Amino acid sequence: MNEAHGAGHAEILLGLFLIYAAAKLSAELFERLRQPAVVGEILAGVLIGPALLGWVRPNEITSMLAEIGVMFLLFSVGLETRPSSLLQLGGKAARVGILGVIVPFAAGWACLTLWGASTVEAVFAGAALVATSVGITARVLGGMGLLQSEIARVILGAAIFDDILGLLILALATSMAAGDPQIGQLAATAVLALLFVGGVAFIGTPLLTRIAPALKNLRIGNALFAVAMTLCLGLAVAADFIGVAAIIGAFLAGVALSETAQEAHDLHEQTRGVTEFLVPIFLVNIGMQLDINAFADSGTLMLALLLTVLAVLSKIIGCGAGAWDLGRLKALQVGVGMVPRGEVGIVVAQIGLAAGAVSGELFAVVLFMAVATTLIAPPLLKHLLKN
Amino acid sequence: MNEAHGAGHAEILLGLFLIYAAAKLSAELFERLRQPAVVGEILAGVLIGPALLGWVRPNEITSMLAEIGVMFLLFSVGLETRPSSLLQLGGKAARVGILGVIVPFAAGWACLTLWGASTVEAVFAGAALVATSVGITARVLGGMGLLQSEIARVILGAAIFDDILGLLILALATSMAAGDPQIGQLAATAVLALLFVGGVAFIGTPLLTRIAPALKNLRIGNALFAVAMTLCLGLAVAADFIGVAAIIGAFLAGVALSETAQEAHDLHEQTRGVTEFLVPIFLVNIGMQLDINAFADSGTLMLALLLTVLAVLSKIIGCGAGAWDLGRLKALQVGVGMVPRGEVGIVVAQIGLAAGAVSGELFAVVLFMAVATTLIAPPLLKHLLKN
Repeated sequence: MNEAHGAGHAEILLGLFLIYAAAKLSAELFERLRQPAVVGEILAGVLIGPALLGWVRPNEITSMLAEIGVMFLLFSVGLETRPSSLLQLGGKAARVGILGVIVPFAAGWACLTLWGASTVEAVFAGAALVATSVGITARVLGGMGLLQSEIARVILGAAIFDDILGLLILALATSMAAGDPQIGQLAATAVLALLFVGGVAFIGTPLLTRIAPALKNLRIGNALFAVAMTLCLGLAVAADFIGVAAIIGAFLAGVALSETAQEAHDLHEQTRGVTEFLVPIFLVNIGMQLDINAFADSGTLMLALLLTVLAVLSKIIGCGAGAWDLGRLKALQVGVGMVPRGEVGIVVAQIGLAAGAVSGELFAVVLFMAVATTLIAPPLLKHLLKN
Repeated sequence: MNEAHGAGHAEILLGLFLIYAAAKLSAELFERLRQPAVVGEILAGVLIGPALLGWVRPNEITSMLAEIGVMFLLFSVGLETRPSSLLQLGGKAARVGILGVIVPFAAGWACLTLWGASTVEAVFAGAALVATSVGITARVLGGMGLLQSEIARVILGAAIFDDILGLLILALATSMAAGDPQIGQLAATAVLALLFVGGVAFIGTPLLTRIAPALKNLRIGNALFAVAMTLCLGLAVAADFIGVAAIIGAFLAGVALSETAQEAHDLHEQTRGVTEFLVPIFLVNIGMQLDINAFADSGTLMLALLLTVLAVLSKIIGCGAGAWDLGRLKALQVGVGMVPRGEVGIVVAQIGLAAGAVSGELFAVVLFMAVATTLIAPPLLKHLLKN
């Protein structure tokens, strides 16, 4: 009964089918060209999205499914991450995260200031360069079976510091745009965010590991999966409420369950089903955001290319320096792994645009940088990891 | 970064968490009371929805996720259904489907006519009584491990006939409401729907079984799952386009893949993950639709109770008569299995309301009938199947 759901549902369903089919055809093509499938799926979004064919437009449903998709992706990465292994490398991760925030922020701020932009615009550009889309890197590492490697753990740990610092810079930029930076409130947010992450890692995880055997007494079918989904959604909501990214909450939920889930093959496969279903929507949705028409002006294109180069170099230098004692190759791998800005960079630009602090031109530039870094990093990373 | 997605996303995420947590807690409670988990999950929706606590309201996202959820539920049921086994029982299924449409339609129409409603209102009430929500029954049968049983196959086959006939009656009602019934177009829709179902079953399935070995040559990870999802979405869209319910397309996609997927444990688990994640949203969403305030008027409550009784009896009598040669108990099981009206009944009422053919009072009455039949059938079915 297609009348049954009105044109809206039928159109959305058609959009999902096109997204999914385009993503998978393109992924297959890229695999055959020995290029990363993620790049193929993002480019599928550029192709079918408003930039080229205009078959599907990003909408409330695709962006929500994309967000749930990357949440579950990080949750499933968390399931593969033992808390102890994350802690072992905590110091290194902190250094990578912190340097990987300072250098890109300075680069973005300086570039826009020299370009003649206002202070608020320059701060927003800096904030957009800070954002790391760890989902993209996790996807590449997972595809190569390297989620347990040292550099994967450093990158995932660093992403937590990166996110918390990025949150603070974004909050600073937003309050500057509103005309009154509230330092006290920023400090409170920072403390809350750290308490949340620490609380889940040091209290939640051992607690959960202790009560896990009691889950066997649940009567509902598939109880472990139900508990896992509830925890994932619950911690994502809590993280969002505290001010940290929902995906950090989902990742921590996965980490908290990792000991319990070690033997649970079904849980892994079922989570993988949800992830595999939603992640193509997440990747295509990134590509669909790209607006090619904005670059008819050569000055805008110049700035976009310049900012993209700075975005790549500043993360490689900042994060690479933080990971220097892992050796040159691994430091480079970590740096490149932190390059993709993906949906996080796009979201920062959207906030700036909504706050009236970012012009339409700078918005298009940041969008370009976000998509371009997300396309550049995976083949580079794949190449470096093969050595 | 919760600012990152605006209040909208944060609120939707919170809504999903509440839906999921309430559904699973309630399912656990009902399992302990030896009642079907589906009933618990629907009542969780009544509890947290506008009818009682008002914590979550049904919205575009929950209803879309619910629709995708029931689609995948039927897809996974299809995966367990061999085409041959469906054909064996085709004659019986047709009888059950057809009688299960005629008797409820007549009952709904007669009831409303005697109550003094207009002809169009009476036809809409009849159409709402025709609709079967086979997802609910599939969930109960699956939970008891009975998807391969004879009665499951009869019910699933009958649901296809039921859906096609229901579609025609709804189209007739809608064109009556618009003031010009177009018989030629209805006939064309019917022929198209039958061609679609027949085409997928008799041509698509053997074709797919033949080309399946070639899937091994695909390079993308998890290729079978990717193909399965694409096929499920594609046939759901095609069915929707033809005018059949999207879930019938998804079910046929599952049937078409059932031979190929027989040995693929991963495909089953991954599909189960998607289903288990989305089905609670589907069930809670049904409960959230209920509007209790409409029944302050005792006349309305009377009509709602009367229509519910007729809805239960007319399916048991109609479908039971169609399945009579299976023996009295099995005929009764089939009849009860066809009782839930669920989301399909709700959708019929919504179309009538949108067309201006159904009053607010009758809308509330049909909604009550849809939710009540969905709550009554599972415990009855579970009890009958234990014998």
